Amino acid sequence: MTKPPLKLPAIDPAGVAPVAGSTYPGEFKPRVAGREKRKLGDALGLKNFGVNLTTMKPGSASALRHAHAKQDEFVYIVSGELVLVTDAGEQLLTAGLCAGFPAGKKDAHHLVNRSAHDAVYLEIGDRTPGDAVVYPDDDLAAQSIDGRWQFTRKNGTPY
Amino acid sequence: MTKPPLKLPAIDPAGVAPVAGSTYPGEFKPRVAGREKRKLGDALGLKNFGVNLTTMKPGSASALRHAHAKQDEFVYIVSGELVLVTDAGEQLLTAGLCAGFPAGKKDAHHLVNRSAHDAVYLEIGDRTPGDAVVYPDDDLAAQSIDGRWQFTRKNGTPY
Repeated sequence: MTKPPLKLPAIDPAGVAPVAGSTYPGEFKPRVAGREKRKLGDALGLKNFGVNLTTMKPGSASALRHAHAKQDEFVYIVSGELVLVTDAGEQLLTAGLCAGFPAGKKDAHHLVNRSAHDAVYLEIGDRTPGDAVVYPDDDLAAQSIDGRWQFTRKNGTPY
Repeated sequence: MTKPPLKLPAIDPAGVAPVAGSTYPGEFKPRVAGREKRKLGDALGLKNFGVNLTTMKPGSASALRHAHAKQDEFVYIVSGELVLVTDAGEQLLTAGLCAGFPAGKKDAHHLVNRSAHDAVYLEIGDRTPGDAVVYPDDDLAAQSIDGRWQFTRKNGTPY
């Protein structure tokens, strides 16, 4: 039986460097400033979907509240407490609970850490090309062009 | 703040009925007889990838050791201990560790519960059409035809 350090195709997420920051236009960046993503799927060489182990500090959001046109999303709470905000209202998600967001639904979502402690969750999203994202609460729209998100105001003008 | 019961798009996996059994030809079924899958992705209406929360009893395997031609796979250990078997050797995966299996690699994999206790893991796989699966240790081959797995012997004859 091999003991750690693990060899691919296995990894310990603790060994994957966390990435902070976002590609949002500047005025939106503070809302996700307490978010750090460990990109497990990339570290494992996966291409068809992304897997992040994301740590959220108190006060941070996972994203602006949004909905995808073509890509599904799934989240699983690993530790701590996060509030899921959707049209269904606010729901408290604790470790072991999960949520899923089928592509093409109008019901936008995000997670917010309103607790006093860090929370950690797994997030999975596929990479179906030609995706677009709507943000009902903010003057923002996004389109995936060649795999990169391009952000504009809702009227199509650039930030 | 809403208290449980949760409403979609959130669910408690404990409320999703576990599914035992497999579609393998009969002689292979006993190897995964101690496996129960809670199909979270289906319960949440996801189409682009599957998410199962799978419980493995002592002695059970997750699957025959296999590799996918077109579909990526990811596993994250939630509780207990599982042995990951790949060409890299045997590695013990405990809660919080993970592994990923990029499509098109020859390195087949499966998880085996050699402990005295149940183990639980999350498994994610996409649904890229036209997939095929190789089983290096067994006289078995599988092709995905219209989203259903068709099993044959390696020489193409049916079971």
